Amino acid sequence: MKQSADLQTILTRRFRVDDAANFDLSKYDPKDKADIGLSKSEGKALMKVAKKRLADLQDLLYANGTKSLLIVFQGMDTSGKDGTIKHVMSGVNPQGVTVSSFKQPGPQELLHGFLWRIHIAGPSAGRIVIFNRSHYEDVLVTRVHPELLEREHLPGEVGTPEFWQGRFDDIRNFEHYLSRQGTVVLKFFLNISREEQRKRLLRRLDLKDKRWKFSSADMKEREFWGDYRHAYEEAIRHTSCDHAPWFVIPANRKWFARLVVIHAIIDTMENLGQKTPTMEPDLASSLDKYRQELLDEAG
Amino acid sequence: MKQSADLQTILTRRFRVDDAANFDLSKYDPKDKADIGLSKSEGKALMKVAKKRLADLQDLLYANGTKSLLIVFQGMDTSGKDGTIKHVMSGVNPQGVTVSSFKQPGPQELLHGFLWRIHIAGPSAGRIVIFNRSHYEDVLVTRVHPELLEREHLPGEVGTPEFWQGRFDDIRNFEHYLSRQGTVVLKFFLNISREEQRKRLLRRLDLKDKRWKFSSADMKEREFWGDYRHAYEEAIRHTSCDHAPWFVIPANRKWFARLVVIHAIIDTMENLGQKTPTMEPDLASSLDKYRQELLDEAG
Repeated sequence: MKQSADLQTILTRRFRVDDAANFDLSKYDPKDKADIGLSKSEGKALMKVAKKRLADLQDLLYANGTKSLLIVFQGMDTSGKDGTIKHVMSGVNPQGVTVSSFKQPGPQELLHGFLWRIHIAGPSAGRIVIFNRSHYEDVLVTRVHPELLEREHLPGEVGTPEFWQGRFDDIRNFEHYLSRQGTVVLKFFLNISREEQRKRLLRRLDLKDKRWKFSSADMKEREFWGDYRHAYEEAIRHTSCDHAPWFVIPANRKWFARLVVIHAIIDTMENLGQKTPTMEPDLASSLDKYRQELLDEAG
Repeated sequence: MKQSADLQTILTRRFRVDDAANFDLSKYDPKDKADIGLSKSEGKALMKVAKKRLADLQDLLYANGTKSLLIVFQGMDTSGKDGTIKHVMSGVNPQGVTVSSFKQPGPQELLHGFLWRIHIAGPSAGRIVIFNRSHYEDVLVTRVHPELLEREHLPGEVGTPEFWQGRFDDIRNFEHYLSRQGTVVLKFFLNISREEQRKRLLRRLDLKDKRWKFSSADMKEREFWGDYRHAYEEAIRHTSCDHAPWFVIPANRKWFARLVVIHAIIDTMENLGQKTPTMEPDLASSLDKYRQELLDEAG
């Protein structure tokens, strides 16, 4: 087993989509373990250390109050979005983290552009915002089921190649704007195999305390597996860039997926190079005075 | 005096900035009257007709519920933003129009990117939103007083040429996104001369019922007249485009400024080519049945 810093670099680089134009989803194995011979129990031990580190980094982000993080989770049904968010983020102070889950847009949301509710929910300085599903649904589920576009109040021809190109441009520009404002955007695609989804759906049916998560809609969407893969490939190809990279996370093994995700987040936050804020010079020079005031008050 | 349709074309074309790259503010005369020999009383009569037309077009926009309009008003202090909005829009149904005035951003707004409050306030389908000042303040007052950037939580170097270029790109991209979503963006710069501002400020001091509008800040900003002119020129040069044009309105004469603005709005709305929505075929075929039901109920 490698040292933690090495591990972080290996996990982050291997699954980050750097060459977006030539992105090929089929080259990413949902069972990939990065050839580092990590066992599940070793992975869980590393996870504990990483969670502590993430909590410290988030304290620093909050204390500085300048930069912010937007973390997008996407993936097929059962790919582990909820579980990953729960396990990766459960160690950090909730005061600095918000999770927004984007369901089907409602009537008021549909009267606005698709980035409206997204922009509103974006992070303010010093905070982390997690998107459980996101604006990418507007080039994923909507692309697989273009009839959904009829709900939106859109001008001109919809669903054409130019239309999707326009959406990709809008997303890329929006994330570029966010990055210029100090928001680092990270996007995780939890990549499971079709066979793994079959097992997980069966498990939801068989285990009583999992059954509430089963939905017949999942069965229906499963039929569009190939279309979704294609839509993901296109979306990632057009929107992965330096200031807002995609990570394709091998998600057949939940423990491994979480380990990659947390290290990618840690790596990003470390690269912000933030330090504990120092006191303003004016204030620092008055510390003795304040100390004396507080001591005198007791007398 | 020319016919109204001609007049509309003349006023709209003359003051719209079509060749943005070569935009030169000094070529726009604040006293320009478009060489059509219109008197003030003729102008006021035309304004009445135009207001009726605008009200009808807005009813149509609302009934169709697909496209929307975002109208930005910018201009130096006393240039007539409030008065223009009041006179141009007072004939339309307030149900379909919202005016948002953007003052100095507050603490919560400053924690987000400069387009956050702007995007939130944008129009939903079928509606007109007026911005009294706007996101352009972030490349105008902030450009003239770059120390204001310190309030924002921005990464990297601020106030450099690249920084302003980034803001122009963000604005252009944002408005492009809005246009793809069906929002037509119109931007009016109410162009007064320095001498005209002097007169209007004096008037505010002298007339008792105008005095509440006088502010010492206006006197201070007046000293930066040249810097503001330069900032406006740069902003218009970088952000006037087909889907979101700027209009430089000669605003020394209020009645003429309003006439140009209302005709530019009408021209834009007419070009949407909207018609009264027709009934759905299913519903249309059942009209007799419903009519009979309502008649029978009386018996």
